[in-house]
Amino acid sequence: MGTRGVSHRDAECPVARTVDVIGDRWSLLIVRDVLDGIHRFSELQRNLGLAKNILATRLRELVNQGILELVPAADGSAYQEYALTGRGRELFTVIVALRKWGEHHLFAEDERHSDLLEITSRQPVELHVTNAAGQPVTAEDAFVRKVSEG
Amino acid sequence: MGTRGVSHRDAECPVARTVDVIGDRWSLLIVRDVLDGIHRFSELQRNLGLAKNILATRLRELVNQGILELVPAADGSAYQEYALTGRGRELFTVIVALRKWGEHHLFAEDERHSDLLEITSRQPVELHVTNAAGQPVTAEDAFVRKVSEG
Repeated sequence: MGTRGVSHRDAECPVARTVDVIGDRWSLLIVRDVLDGIHRFSELQRNLGLAKNILATRLRELVNQGILELVPAADGSAYQEYALTGRGRELFTVIVALRKWGEHHLFAEDERHSDLLEITSRQPVELHVTNAAGQPVTAEDAFVRKVSEG
Repeated sequence: MGTRGVSHRDAECPVARTVDVIGDRWSLLIVRDVLDGIHRFSELQRNLGLAKNILATRLRELVNQGILELVPAADGSAYQEYALTGRGRELFTVIVALRKWGEHHLFAEDERHSDLLEITSRQPVELHVTNAAGQPVTAEDAFVRKVSEG
C-alpha cells in the first residue's frame, strides 16, 4: 500500500484484508458521511475539513476498491455524486462498531454526542456479538482458527 | 493528530473520536494481534512485518490512549508485555465487524480464511446490528441525530 508499508491483501486474515481496503481514518469518515447522506465532493470536503487533493485521492481509492461509485446527481443537475455500492453499504456494521465503542469510552458522562437511531422507533441502534444461539460472546470466549489448523 | 491532519477529538460524533484513537491500519492490526494472544514486541514485529520504529510509535500511542498497557511478562521473566486494558478489550466488536465484512466481501468463494470461533461451541462468532427489540437494522433503517437536534 505505497508509503504505508506492507500490503495485507493476500492475507488469510479477513481483518487484515479489510484494513487494507478501509483502515484509514479518512476512508472510514468518508464512508460514515456517505452513509449519512453526504454525496457531493464539496459537501464532503466541508464536513471533513480535508484538503481537496487528499479527499480526491481517498475517494478515488474507495471507487477503485468498489466501496463507492460515481452516479448522476439525484437532483438531475450535471453534477456527479458519490454513492455507496452494495458492499460499501455493508460497512454500516463497521461504522456502528466504531460509534458504539466511542460512545461508551470517549465521552464524559455529561457530554453529549450524536446518536444513531432506528427511523421507525427512534431508539438507538444496538450492536451484538453472539454465538450461533444468540448468546453474547466477548473476546475471552473466542479464538481465531488459522487456515493451517482448518 | 500530527501529520495526519485535523483532529476529531472534540467532535460530537463518536465515530470521529474513535477513528482518531484507533483509525489507522497498524493500530487496528496491533489490537487484533493482542486480542489473539500476541503480547511481546518481538512477536508483534514478526507477525506484522512492521519496522521497529513504526511499531514502537504505534504501541506508545495505544498506551497513551489507554488501549494497551505494559505488564510484567506472564512467564515471570524480566520482560514486559503489552496487554489490552478493559476499554481496549472492548475493541473486540470493532475487530469482529472488520473481520465479518472482509470474510463476506474480500474472499473468493473457494478461498480459505481464518475463522473467529466461540471456544465452547467451535462455531463462528456472529455480529448483529439490531433495534431495541432485537430485529435486524440496516443502513437504510437508521439515521444520525445530531446533538443540535437533540
